[in-house]
Order: sequence, then structure tokens, then C-alpha cells
Amino acid sequence: MKTSQTIISTLREAPNDAVIASHQLMMRAGLIRKLGNGLYSYMPLGLRAFRKVENIIREELDNAGLLEMKPTVIQPGELWKESGRWDKMGAEMLKPKNRGGQDMVVSPTAEEAFTALIRDGLTSYKQLPIIAYQINTKYRDEIRPRYGVMRGREFTMMDAYSFDADQKSLDESYEKCAAAYRRIFKRMGLSTISVKADTGAMGGSGSEEFMVESEVGDDTLILCPKCGYAANIEKAACKPDIALDKDGNPQVATDKSVEEIPTPDVKTIDDLAAFLQTTPQAFIKTLIYKVINCGLDLSAHPSCKKLEKIDSDAGSYYPVSFVAVCIRGDLDVNETKLAAILKASDVELASDEDVERITTAPVGFAGPVKLENAPIIVDNSVMTMHDCVTGGLKKDVHFVHVEPNRDFTPFMVTDVRTVKPGDICPDCGAEFYSKKGNELGHIFKLGDKYTKSMNVTYLDVNGKLQTPIMGCYGIGVDRTLASIIEEHHDDDGIKWTMSTAPYQVVIVPVKYDGAMKENADKIYTELKSCGIDVLLDDRNERPGVKFKDADLIGFPIRIVVGDKNLPNVEVKLRGNPDAQLIPVDEVTKVTSQIVKEELDKLNA
Amino acid sequence: MKTSQTIISTLREAPNDAVIASHQLMMRAGLIRKLGNGLYSYMPLGLRAFRKVENIIREELDNAGLLEMKPTVIQPGELWKESGRWDKMGAEMLKPKNRGGQDMVVSPTAEEAFTALIRDGLTSYKQLPIIAYQINTKYRDEIRPRYGVMRGREFTMMDAYSFDADQKSLDESYEKCAAAYRRIFKRMGLSTISVKADTGAMGGSGSEEFMVESEVGDDTLILCPKCGYAANIEKAACKPDIALDKDGNPQVATDKSVEEIPTPDVKTIDDLAAFLQTTPQAFIKTLIYKVINCGLDLSAHPSCKKLEKIDSDAGSYYPVSFVAVCIRGDLDVNETKLAAILKASDVELASDEDVERITTAPVGFAGPVKLENAPIIVDNSVMTMHDCVTGGLKKDVHFVHVEPNRDFTPFMVTDVRTVKPGDICPDCGAEFYSKKGNELGHIFKLGDKYTKSMNVTYLDVNGKLQTPIMGCYGIGVDRTLASIIEEHHDDDGIKWTMSTAPYQVVIVPVKYDGAMKENADKIYTELKSCGIDVLLDDRNERPGVKFKDADLIGFPIRIVVGDKNLPNVEVKLRGNPDAQLIPVDEVTKVTSQIVKEELDKLNA
Repeated sequence: MKTSQTIISTLREAPNDAVIASHQLMMRAGLIRKLGNGLYSYMPLGLRAFRKVENIIREELDNAGLLEMKPTVIQPGELWKESGRWDKMGAEMLKPKNRGGQDMVVSPTAEEAFTALIRDGLTSYKQLPIIAYQINTKYRDEIRPRYGVMRGREFTMMDAYSFDADQKSLDESYEKCAAAYRRIFKRMGLSTISVKADTGAMGGSGSEEFMVESEVGDDTLILCPKCGYAANIEKAACKPDIALDKDGNPQVATDKSVEEIPTPDVKTIDDLAAFLQTTPQAFIKTLIYKVINCGLDLSAHPSCKKLEKIDSDAGSYYPVSFVAVCIRGDLDVNETKLAAILKASDVELASDEDVERITTAPVGFAGPVKLENAPIIVDNSVMTMHDCVTGGLKKDVHFVHVEPNRDFTPFMVTDVRTVKPGDICPDCGAEFYSKKGNELGHIFKLGDKYTKSMNVTYLDVNGKLQTPIMGCYGIGVDRTLASIIEEHHDDDGIKWTMSTAPYQVVIVPVKYDGAMKENADKIYTELKSCGIDVLLDDRNERPGVKFKDADLIGFPIRIVVGDKNLPNVEVKLRGNPDAQLIPVDEVTKVTSQIVKEELDKLNA
Repeated sequence: MKTSQTIISTLREAPNDAVIASHQLMMRAGLIRKLGNGLYSYMPLGLRAFRKVENIIREELDNAGLLEMKPTVIQPGELWKESGRWDKMGAEMLKPKNRGGQDMVVSPTAEEAFTALIRDGLTSYKQLPIIAYQINTKYRDEIRPRYGVMRGREFTMMDAYSFDADQKSLDESYEKCAAAYRRIFKRMGLSTISVKADTGAMGGSGSEEFMVESEVGDDTLILCPKCGYAANIEKAACKPDIALDKDGNPQVATDKSVEEIPTPDVKTIDDLAAFLQTTPQAFIKTLIYKVINCGLDLSAHPSCKKLEKIDSDAGSYYPVSFVAVCIRGDLDVNETKLAAILKASDVELASDEDVERITTAPVGFAGPVKLENAPIIVDNSVMTMHDCVTGGLKKDVHFVHVEPNRDFTPFMVTDVRTVKPGDICPDCGAEFYSKKGNELGHIFKLGDKYTKSMNVTYLDVNGKLQTPIMGCYGIGVDRTLASIIEEHHDDDGIKWTMSTAPYQVVIVPVKYDGAMKENADKIYTELKSCGIDVLLDDRNERPGVKFKDADLIGFPIRIVVGDKNLPNVEVKLRGNPDAQLIPVDEVTKVTSQIVKEELDKLNA
């Protein structure tokens, strides 16, 4: 391609709303233009990079035996009512009515569509396993779209769905996708962090997130520098540590009975530590949580005997319940973990009124001793504490000499601790550090959630009707593209990897005229015939402008054809400060070799 | 690919709602499945054919220098308000509101989006011409979707938009696209009929439709068997013929004055011909039309002096007006032509009340003589008529001995005739015939409709602000795919062309076992390494079932590996009744040769 035949429109300044590097550089390099809020269009140069990313994904999935299909983007709302997600999806799902007044959906994801399509022809176990995928338009009505294509409203997603006869087969499908993902990101030159959800306390069905580091990441990752442990902070676990006294020794059990002490004007744990001349580790922090749709059976606790309970296909649950959560004073409760343990759809700190009702005291004096109005969920950290302090269930009163187990009875002892940098890796004992990250891909074992609600069946080897189980697998194509730029750029612009660059080589004649034109054309034709993606900058601009644009757009190899150097030309890699002088007759061989080596490295 | 690794699910019967061959066969061959009304999803096999069609389009457009871009599918309604089409698009456009209450559009076409994107970076004439395209999802809320993907609600369209500095450049862009279209359809093996809109009386800006013959076509085409003239009946013109008397001689002028005759109980032209013992050619049929938004200046006619007239940016127009249209009694008025001549948005036959007011008589007695209340639009056919009969502007009265021009004054003489099979080609004099057709592609010179309303400008060579002019170009991808099947099928199933088949070759071992398995695998591996798309049917089914499926799905070449024939195998073309026996060692060479020859023929 010649520059004059495509659209090159670089900008000196990024628009004000572009705050991260990839957004700024994609706008400045003219790869995308904004069509509306959260709606970005790819210009010819940007689309070339987009297609390379898309094709790497497609190739690896095809190689792994996945089957590409193409459901519609506009889908009948009926399907989402069948699965039960119509009401749950909320305002992110665009739900137009068609001219007949029927509910339609602009697909934000496609579990329902794939389940319906596979259901249509599935009769026998012989047809399984199936892993089908699409790379197609999705729309989510983000309340605050930002960061360009990193978090747009319309985006392109690869979403795959596996259908298996049994857990072993699902495990294989899942591993197949996980392996394909690793190759996909490697080929693009992306350093991903693989975050497994079941590394810690969570267990259950498998799930793995493929994250990239990002200053504006949605997620906080807890990472081990030694063994590679990586977890989302929402799910990370650490090695339990023994509670220490103010001198740094393990806390020692006491024979003394619980005793009330007055604590006027003491508001916080730090106040209390100062007041009692000790450290926060001496305190059992007690928080009252309101639990929404708790699926854990609470009936063993006297306070829950009369709770409203609803029976549904998915099991029975309490629409509203309350629990007390105890944790060591220097630690924080992880509400995601807490909700998972309670099999709840949500947990939130109880209102002042509810706290007063349950603890019989104003906010600030909750404690497990003599607490009767809620089951007590106790974090593991509490179980090595001794002779400790808790709220006294009365205004301006605390208890001292409290011994867990002796002075109160946990309803459940578990891990609800928020892991922090400096906490200890459970696998190898090193100290954790932390990073912000963005999710590029996700693989997830769904089980029979959709196949059961949407009534998908097959006959097994014994002629018995069975329900297949599913996995789902997603990669955000636009976000992946932006992440390549986030990882590969410098002050001058983008530094595309060889596998994803819109063009692998740019030829810049100092002036597109005479011998320079002749030689530039010759190199251009030769490189093209070698299958290299090459752009010839034939614009009548000053060389400096062309060099600046080449660096900004970020072509991996720049060949400069100047009168001064002929019959040699300059070959410069985007990442290197220095150029090499190469004879015109050898430049095609040299360049092809560089391209090949780079691709081999990525594909290795 | 092996059959066991993909989804093959053929049906004996097509669903009841499938009434055309392509719909029936796509369903029976398992290429598509229905997800909702007018919403068809492509299964793996169908998607392979779809991608081939898509890629042929993309390759030819890229070769022609068009630039692929990717606007969003969900677009801000704001853009459609800018262009003025928000209100005009009607119920076919799906218009969801986003969570902020803003009007959004699910793109039915993308003039606005491309105009906005190009406007964004356009400054100088040096950037022009630009022809940009996308191949992307569209949605039109068809009131009655049918014929499978031939007329679905969601579909994939290639839509291109050219931006040129002047008419000459637009003509070049237009020709470039027209040439690309011809190659695209040829490469797929589709026989298209090219229908030019400006071959006849219509003139104006250029437009060309690429049609395929179809029993259920939306359009009627008027075709010349000799010179290739082809026109949509809405626009077709024919050679004017001279009005004849009842003996078949040209009508002869009369000296007699107009005379009233009583014509009681005469309702139709045929009644009148019988009553007067002549033929319908002796009558001037006069129809009163109500004209909506007439843009033609009618002020020269006395009856129109006081008509309400509205001035707009696009010129002034009459919201409602009436005209009388005269045509020879055996011919019909073409309302599309009439509306075009009147520059009107619509024309319709006037109500009985309006006819009575304008003709001062009940319906059935309209005529041009002494008609004062409306301008008279006269079809060319009337101008060779003599001594003729017209309505008498009174109940049960007609005029005889009417001479056009002598007895009434046309406001305008023009072509508003509906052309029929048997009419004479204006270019070569042969007799027309007619076919039903479906439009696959359309190219159209838009002018400045969008660039003007959306305020797109550039600086010309003199530094003067100018508005570029546009062309638009579309190809329906799904409809093109279905049309290939319409043209290439028989009673057994689809007969894919070599360039569009999901797989070019199917290998059918009689039993996938022993020597048959060994040889089938060998041929499979060899063909794959030659770059042939090959499917190996490794199912444990009876050979008859596998043969039937192969014919139904329609692979161009079938290789049967059977014990009886080894070391030879059967090679059979889908279109031929007979197979050839070929030694296993030669089958790859022979097959590759057939594939190559077929592709060369299509690409020639």
C-alpha cells in the first residue's frame, strides 16, 4: 500500500478525554475515530491491526478444534427469558422492541444463543463434545465508557461455548481453550498474568482470568514474586499468620474471665489500641452484614429459625438475613469472599438501625461475646488470638480477656480476609506484591446453568436422557489490541509487535523522486512479493514529518531511502536508536529475515 | 476437517416456512439455523461458504483500491437527525434508547456514519478521492421477513461510500466499483443482470443494479434478447410506437370539430371500444393523480397559481397538488416514472371527490378537452393519435374527433408509460421479454445529499471551501450466498461453485476402517497439503447416507474410497452423473488439477 492511497491522519495532540496511552496513541496515530460516546470506529490502518489480532485468535481456536459459527447480533428477548437472565442483566443490556412489539436484545454475550443453536440439533452423546465460537459485535451500555476501545460500549468479542457430556470431558475442553489462550497472547507479544479463581479458598468450578498489567486496571491482582501465584484480590488467599501481642510474640491464652471495661469517647480501633496501650491485633473486629439471597443453610442458628425462606429450582434461600463477621483488628473483610461463602447474591454493611437492633448497642460496640441475634462468621485469623478485646454490646463498653471458642461459639470458621501486599504466599511463603490489571480473557466452567434452564438434552450411551454441561470462554478483541499498545509504546508512539502491526515495514524515501523513487519502488515491490506487509510513504512531506509519523504509528521496521546513502539504505528497528546501512540489493533479504525471526520468536 | 470434528446435521425435510430452493436447501444441509423471526445463524459449514463469499468481495474491493473501515453497528441517532433521515427511515429502523435516554440506531445502512468519519479528518482536495467500505452487520425490521437469509431482518452487507472532488472523479470511482462488482459476481459463478437506471428517459445521476433471476424476486426486469438492454420495470423505456386504427394503419388526422356523444352505461375502455366499434388505441385515457410534495414548478398553469408552496433548502415544493395524465387507451401509467418527472415524493390516484371536483363529472368521464382544473401531463404515445375519443367531462358523455394539440394543450409531453414484454427495445428494435429478479448489488451516485446536510468540506486547489460529492455501493452478502444456491442446485441438493463451497472436496470411505481408512487418510493429508479445502467423512454411517449428505451439502468433488476399487478410487464431480476411477497415487494430482481449472475459469 502507498500512503497516498490510504488514510494517514496523525494528530499532534490527543483529545482531552484520552487519558491512557493506548487511547491517546490510537487517536493520535489515526487508528480510530469517535462516532459517539463509547463508540469507536476503526480507520483503515487501525482495522489492519484489528484484523491481525482477530486472525491470530481465529487461527489458534481453529487449530484447537473449535468451530466458528455466526449467530445474529440482534437476538430474541425470549431466549433470555428462558435462561432467566432477562431481568438479571440490568441496564447494560440494550433491549429494543421490534416493530411487532417483541422484546429484542443487542447481544452483550451469547450463552443463550449458542445454547439454543446447539440444542436445536443435539440428540446423541456421539455429537459431543462441541466447542463453538464466534468473533462478533457485542454491545454493553456501560454507564461510563472510557479509555477508548479499552472500555467502549460497542466492542468485538470472541466468545466460545463448550458442550460436554461429563466433567472429565469439560475439563479437557477447558484445558484446550486455556492452552489456545496462552498461545494467542504469546503470539501477539502480550505478557498476560494468568489468574486462577480456585487457587485459594474458593474451590468450586474452575475459572481462569488472563490479565494484563494496567495503571487503570479494573482489578487488583495479588502476586507472588517467587512461585508465580496470582489471584484477583477479590479471591486471593494467603498463609494464615499467628496473632501477635504488642511485643511481637504469639498471643497467650488467659485464665481470666471476660471483664467489662468503660471506653468513653473511643471511636476507632486505633483509638482503642492507644487507650489500652496495645496494637490492633489485640482486637476482634466485629461487623454486622446484611445478606441478600443467602443460600447457605442458617437454620441451625436460633436467630434464623423464623427467617423467611424461599424454595426455587436452584435451591432454597433467605431473601434477607444478617450475620456478624469477626476478624482480627488489623485486617479487613473481603466481601466477595463473604458472599461466596454465604452463597449470597450480595452482602452489604448493615444500616445503623439494624446494627443497633442486633447488637443492642449503638454502632461501634459490636462483639461476639453474648451476641445472640445473628450467626457469627469467624475469620481464620481470630482462631490464634488470645486474651483479646471485643465490643461490649453496650455504649462505651468493651470486653477484655476474651478467649475465642471459650467465650463465644462461631457459626462457621472460614477465610474472609482481604489479602494485602506483604501477606505471605500460601504456596511458597514469599511476600505478596500487588498490581492493577485488566482482564483480556476469561475461561469458566459453567456447569448446567444454561443447559438445564433451557432444557438441552441428549441420549447417553445407555439411551438415557442427559443434560450436557457447558464452559464459556471470552476474549475482548479491542481491549487486547489496546493492551498491545499499552505494553509496547514509548514517548514517540506505538511499537507494534511484528504479528500485529498494520504494516510490518514502512519505506520512507527522503523525497519520492528520481533515484530515491526508483529504489523505494523496487524495494516496495520486492518486499510485497515476499509476503511482507509494507507501506510506502510517497507523500510530498518533509522527511522529519514522515519519520515522526512512522514512529507514532509504530511500524516495526523503517527503511529510509536517501540520495546521500544510495546505493545503501537505512534499516532501523522501531525499538532501536540506531540504523544499519544496507545495500539496496540486500535490503529485501535482510528485512525478510528480521520479519521472519521476529514472528518465529512470537510463534515459538 | 473430519466430519466427526464438525457439525453435520442434515434434514430429510425442510421446515414448512421454507418455500424457495435456497432456504430449503440451506436448512436441510444444516448450513443455517433459525434463532428468531428473520434471524438466521450460520453453522460451521454455512459460515465457511459465507466467509468465502465475504472474502471474494473483500479481495476484489481491496484490489480496486477501496479502503476497509469498521464503524460501529450501534450508531448515535444524532447523525441521522443531522442528515435528515431520522424521521424518514420509518419502522424498518430499530431505534433503541441507551441508558442515558439518547436515541441510538441499529445500523440499516451507513451513509451517515461514513460521512461523519470522513468529515472528521478531511481538509484538503489532496486527500480525495476516498472510497471506504465495510462488511458488517445490518438490521432492517422487515415487516414480513421470509425466504431464509434472502430477506432476513439481520444480514451482512458490504457497503461502500466514495468521496470525490468533482463529477469526473465520481464517475471514475463509480466505474471502479462497477468493474469490481462484475468480477466479484463472476468469481462466485453468479449470472447477474446489470440494470442501469439511466438507460431510458430517467437520466439524472447514475445508478446500476446487479440483479439475479428469481421466481420470488422483488423486481420485474424488462430485458432485450438481442442487445442486452435491461431495466427495472419501474424505469424501463421502450421505442415509441405509432398509434394505429382498428385496421392496423396509422391514425389519420381529422378536420371535424370535437363532438359530444352520449355513452350511457359505458364503464370501461373495452365497453367503449365495443360501443364505438373500434380498439382501445382510439382512446385517450385520462387519469387524475394526487401528487405529494411535487417539486416541479407548476406555476405556469392557471389552476396552480394559488397552490400552497413551501420553500426548503432542497428547493420549493407543493405539499399537495393534482395533475391529469393522458395516455393511449391500451397502455398503463408507470407511477414511478410519473413521480420522478414531477420530482414528487409520491403520486396516487385521486379520490372520487377530487376527480369530481377537477373534472366536473363523476369518475369515468375525465378527458383533456376543456379541462381547466389541473395541468395535463401527456404521454408520448398520445402525440401520434388522431381523431380520437376522450371523456366528456359530463356524466355519460364522451368527445369524438379529438385532435391532440388542436383541442387541448399539454402542460408537458413526456414518457410515463409502463413497458411490457413485447414492447420494442429503444436501442435495437427487438421485442422485450420479462423476468422476476432480486437485487444483489447496487451502485449509485448520491451527489451532495449527505455531504451538504452534514456539512463536509475541503479546501480546493485554490484554497476555496468545497463540498465533496458521494457515491454509495452495496452488496448483500447473505443474499448473494443464497443466490449462488438458487442458481446452482438440483433435486439432490446444492451444487456449490468451486470458489464458494464450504469444502471443495469430500472424501467418503465406504467404511472408515483398514485399507479404506489408510487410503482415505493419505488422500486427505495430501490434498490438505496442496491447499485444497477437504472434508473427510469418517462417520460410521452407511455409504448411501454419506453419499446423500455429500450431494445435499453439495461439495464440488467427491472421492469414494472402497475396498472393491482399491488401489483405485472413484472421483465424481457433483454435476456429473458418472465417476472416474483414478489410482490412489494420482488422485491428489487429478483433484488439484480440477480444482485449479475450475477456479481459473471463475477468476478468468
